[in-house]
Amino acid sequence: MIRFDSDYIEGAHESILKALNETNFIQTVGYGKDEYCEKARESIKNECKAPNTDVHFLVGGTQTNMTVISSILRPYQGVISATTGHINGHETGAVESLGHKILTVAGQNGKITAKQIDERNKEHLDDKSCEHAVQPGMVYISYPTEIGTVYTKEELEDIYAVCKKNKLYLFIDGARMGYGLMAQGNNVSLEDISNLCDVFYIGGTKVGALLGEAVVIINDELKKDFRYYIKQKGGMLAKGRIIGIQFLTLFEDGLYFKISKHAVEKAMEIKRAFAEKGFSFKCDSTTNQQFPIISNSKLEKLNDKYGYTFWEKHDEEHSVIRFCTSWATTDESVKSLVRDIKNL
Amino acid sequence: MIRFDSDYIEGAHESILKALNETNFIQTVGYGKDEYCEKARESIKNECKAPNTDVHFLVGGTQTNMTVISSILRPYQGVISATTGHINGHETGAVESLGHKILTVAGQNGKITAKQIDERNKEHLDDKSCEHAVQPGMVYISYPTEIGTVYTKEELEDIYAVCKKNKLYLFIDGARMGYGLMAQGNNVSLEDISNLCDVFYIGGTKVGALLGEAVVIINDELKKDFRYYIKQKGGMLAKGRIIGIQFLTLFEDGLYFKISKHAVEKAMEIKRAFAEKGFSFKCDSTTNQQFPIISNSKLEKLNDKYGYTFWEKHDEEHSVIRFCTSWATTDESVKSLVRDIKNL
Amino acid sequence: MIRFDSDYIEGAHESILKALNETNFIQTVGYGKDEYCEKARESIKNECKAPNTDVHFLVGGTQTNMTVISSILRPYQGVISATTGHINGHETGAVESLGHKILTVAGQNGKITAKQIDERNKEHLDDKSCEHAVQPGMVYISYPTEIGTVYTKEELEDIYAVCKKNKLYLFIDGARMGYGLMAQGNNVSLEDISNLCDVFYIGGTKVGALLGEAVVIINDELKKDFRYYIKQKGGMLAKGRIIGIQFLTLFEDGLYFKISKHAVEKAMEIKRAFAEKGFSFKCDSTTNQQFPIISNSKLEKLNDKYGYTFWEKHDEEHSVIRFCTSWATTDESVKSLVRDIKNL
Amino acid sequence: MIRFDSDYIEGAHESILKALNETNFIQTVGYGKDEYCEKARESIKNECKAPNTDVHFLVGGTQTNMTVISSILRPYQGVISATTGHINGHETGAVESLGHKILTVAGQNGKITAKQIDERNKEHLDDKSCEHAVQPGMVYISYPTEIGTVYTKEELEDIYAVCKKNKLYLFIDGARMGYGLMAQGNNVSLEDISNLCDVFYIGGTKVGALLGEAVVIINDELKKDFRYYIKQKGGMLAKGRIIGIQFLTLFEDGLYFKISKHAVEKAMEIKRAFAEKGFSFKCDSTTNQQFPIISNSKLEKLNDKYGYTFWEKHDEEHSVIRFCTSWATTDESVKSLVRDIKNL
Repeated sequence: MIRFDSDYIEGAHESILKALNETNFIQTVGYGKDEYCEKARESIKNECKAPNTDVHFLVGGTQTNMTVISSILRPYQGVISATTGHINGHETGAVESLGHKILTVAGQNGKITAKQIDERNKEHLDDKSCEHAVQPGMVYISYPTEIGTVYTKEELEDIYAVCKKNKLYLFIDGARMGYGLMAQGNNVSLEDISNLCDVFYIGGTKVGALLGEAVVIINDELKKDFRYYIKQKGGMLAKGRIIGIQFLTLFEDGLYFKISKHAVEKAMEIKRAFAEKGFSFKCDSTTNQQFPIISNSKLEKLNDKYGYTFWEKHDEEHSVIRFCTSWATTDESVKSLVRDIKNL
Repeated sequence: MIRFDSDYIEGAHESILKALNETNFIQTVGYGKDEYCEKARESIKNECKAPNTDVHFLVGGTQTNMTVISSILRPYQGVISATTGHINGHETGAVESLGHKILTVAGQNGKITAKQIDERNKEHLDDKSCEHAVQPGMVYISYPTEIGTVYTKEELEDIYAVCKKNKLYLFIDGARMGYGLMAQGNNVSLEDISNLCDVFYIGGTKVGALLGEAVVIINDELKKDFRYYIKQKGGMLAKGRIIGIQFLTLFEDGLYFKISKHAVEKAMEIKRAFAEKGFSFKCDSTTNQQFPIISNSKLEKLNDKYGYTFWEKHDEEHSVIRFCTSWATTDESVKSLVRDIKNL
Repeated sequence: MIRFDSDYIEGAHESILKALNETNFIQTVGYGKDEYCEKARESIKNECKAPNTDVHFLVGGTQTNMTVISSILRPYQGVISATTGHINGHETGAVESLGHKILTVAGQNGKITAKQIDERNKEHLDDKSCEHAVQPGMVYISYPTEIGTVYTKEELEDIYAVCKKNKLYLFIDGARMGYGLMAQGNNVSLEDISNLCDVFYIGGTKVGALLGEAVVIINDELKKDFRYYIKQKGGMLAKGRIIGIQFLTLFEDGLYFKISKHAVEKAMEIKRAFAEKGFSFKCDSTTNQQFPIISNSKLEKLNDKYGYTFWEKHDEEHSVIRFCTSWATTDESVKSLVRDIKNL
Repeated sequence: MIRFDSDYIEGAHESILKALNETNFIQTVGYGKDEYCEKARESIKNECKAPNTDVHFLVGGTQTNMTVISSILRPYQGVISATTGHINGHETGAVESLGHKILTVAGQNGKITAKQIDERNKEHLDDKSCEHAVQPGMVYISYPTEIGTVYTKEELEDIYAVCKKNKLYLFIDGARMGYGLMAQGNNVSLEDISNLCDVFYIGGTKVGALLGEAVVIINDELKKDFRYYIKQKGGMLAKGRIIGIQFLTLFEDGLYFKISKHAVEKAMEIKRAFAEKGFSFKCDSTTNQQFPIISNSKLEKLNDKYGYTFWEKHDEEHSVIRFCTSWATTDESVKSLVRDIKNL
């Protein structure tokens, strides 16, 4: 079977394995205070062109989301998110488990708008008994979104302006950051991201690493004592170097962007194949996840040979399915799939 | 500098790196449902001679402690622990962050006794207004303890009997399990551990793995829906195979025990060297951590050459320091240290 | 100004004040273990025809909701509620503050259906990665609902059957229980309520008491150690007798039902007046809250003389407003309002 | 039986009942925004000579403690308290239930010292891995303490100076504030309290009210959005006036101090009787609680006639017991007890 189920079905990029091998017997201190972590931080800051940020390494996405969010909010505050946001449906209530309500707004194409945020906040403030409701304290968006779409630079500018106006912190979940930055037609750079939010993270797990996410804190107000949060929420790896070495490998010479670009190109080949055959899509994804709508009978023809994710029922006879590419997707796999799509 | 600061200063045992390399491009499903995790579970169950247990893989120790403890207790219950327990002083209040008080009892040599547990529970039940206090719900001990001592089989039997009598669950933190099982004079096997508690974990991070802890749930009452807890607390690795492959390597042919034995032997060499030179110790540790008491002036002579951990002030002129060995400790390092101890 | 803003704008029914006066210097033990609380419990059990239930007294509604819900759910479970449920929008995220997500379903007329509950639960169980989402653990409904409607006996039977089938506990918020039981056309008795859920509460604050809510636990599984929860969540009054005396007064000879009936009758007079004048309503409330839709210009004519609650904007020119009656509403007040409605 | 078990065994001072009766049918808005609450706030501010403070009314002590503490601390911070502090042993872990560890220091006579606080904080900051431990964020003391002793003005000055030096907020639990202010030999006024901490509360429940505690927030940093906390933690009474009216009665003309003085005088009579008979005490309490040490055989002679609290075992043959007086304690009760003490 050729798997397109997700972007975490293989191990790590071989440069990462090589680096882990080469450094294996070098002795370092633990908990992310070693020199590899330090160098990795510098590389990331360089790419962000944001020398005064704080960079921290955590293990996984759910953990990162809940750690960052709970570090920002006061107990009576909640986080505004698209209903489709990862924190709202795919993290077993981790955010709520730390005491915070998710204040959902209906997204479109996985995205929410500056206007929606503004109105949601106004609705709260206009309530004379507003202390009977959860106060919006921050906004959570994903770049790219859960369904592979990306915010434009202008959309991000509008969102951040509204956040600042309303004193809401903006947090960008970048579990698939690389695939967004390398998206077709994208006009947002890592530097832009750094300028257009208070805190974000760069995903490693889904972009070539064995594990690990790099949190980049821009806003000084959010920097204090962040290591306490990481430790308390279980995200501080004793052998912190394991994540440092990986991010150093990914960021010291642009590997992160290169492999992300590869994944997006492969995804575009799949997208074209479906489109040319007349299939429509759940949304116009320009990143490494594609969501074609396909009849259940045709789907059966793919079942034996390809792994994919059932996303949702489209109607009685059609399903939305997801194909993911990654840094590890081979030309051969995609060629095979494209061929079989043509024959559907 | 030769480091004895901790047992997590290198990467992983080379067999583990080899296995990660060899399996890197094999595609698997995520979240610990892959075949490597499955095989690793079987290997662990075999070693425990406990076929009906549930085995889960989590990322690190603090996370494991808080996930297990919060899965067991009701909101008004707390966990009995030695004051020196890792959960009480070294995890940034992770247990309390999930709502539970740690009910401390003064340990001796890092250990608590069946009698202490019994009395602590009786004290609660005898209080007519007991609902004004936190109810003991479980007991947490470490094997080996924070200061390298080990419970005897008889002590564990007594503790577990008292726990069962009082309807308290018993959880054993085995972050350094291997070093305890291979301790000098130890009479406890992994099978015994499995018979003498409700849930425990086998540490990987400190015993040769890059990361990872294996939770073994013995008591059926604690098995239900445990994967929800792992996910919610941020401990479910997307590329779960990374931990599975490591534990499979450690447990399929006894590597875990072999490397633990090595570490203990090296620690005994250091212990003997200090003892023969007339130094005394904080406690009689039979495992990979040694806690000699040394004058601050002599300590200075070691500072340039060796990494160690300052543990605590003994008196105005003496300190308790910690030397850790591990699977990675070389004969040369220990020989050098022993030589320099003799010259102190 | 004549106030119809809410059902908690006066003090307490005079029989309650009388009882507080008469018992004032009698010495009792604290924390709800006194004889008045005991007798009040018996009276309530008699009215419920449920001798084996546990009855506990708490201070207020938000507190009661969060105490009961957090006593039932495990950390990874959530509570199914109508989007309009009080816990979802009017309690500052109290339920989330204790770690639990509210799993909303769109209600109709403030009510949810057995079918919706069944489907919501099925949706969760059908998800292969269900541990990535919050597990439904219980259902919360209000009787009467936030907008004054009541479930029929048949609806409650269906809901409870579905709950039992799906192993979901059913909790009924009865902050306005009396007004529901005395509703026009209602076919549900307190005995029915006791037979058709696992736990519910009888509101005192909004039905004649100074403060206090009586939790009735039917299901044995939910009874254990409930006093610990009350104490931990701040709901255990030192002078517990204060609530006991009030509920004893309300329940020893049917006062609770009598004053509820009065409030509903007064509400029906207001309802008729609006209806006869051609106004429509947000919903067909048969209890003490009425929600007419009224043009903003006409509303201005009422503003000086009457207190009411702005509920929501209906369209650019109309508002939904709420008029509440209570045990304390006088004939004169209602006559005055009715007269002024006729002149609108 | 004549009860000296606690200071909450009767209802309320008759002036309070009178005020509740007189205001019963006046209609007000809810949730503490009514005019009685407003006037009560002014009266309290006047007594404190602190016009710029915020005053809020909550229902009970446990609730107040957990609400205030959780409003101050960040998730990784804990509260320094005497081991004997009420929050540590008598509130079912309410503080921990909201995520915070209590950092205990051994008190003496129920009190902790500025030096202890300073050292506890230093110990944390000196730890190179301080992020692995809970960070002290505030200090909790009681005035008077759990065992009836009071801090002197000089002690409070020292404590507050150390708190400010270490950026720790100081919170004073005043559940029995009146009895402390009226203590024999006390040199602390309510104005002093207001000058020597960041936030404190004035207990109503134990000093003549049916229920209710008045939180006084001095430090501007702690004022923001406090009503959200009250609502979320279940402490915002719908009929908020009930507490407002009581505090207005207690504070508009000094009733609070008068009844507190009475209670202390009665306690001193009991104290003298025990002392003259040669009994010793657990501590030298100058307030309304007295803790004589008495042989179990003599204790039996009091059992039939008097209610008291067993406090703790002193030795095999002696117990520490507690006698409480209050605003409601009659001369006759005390005379009877004094007589019987003399005959012991």
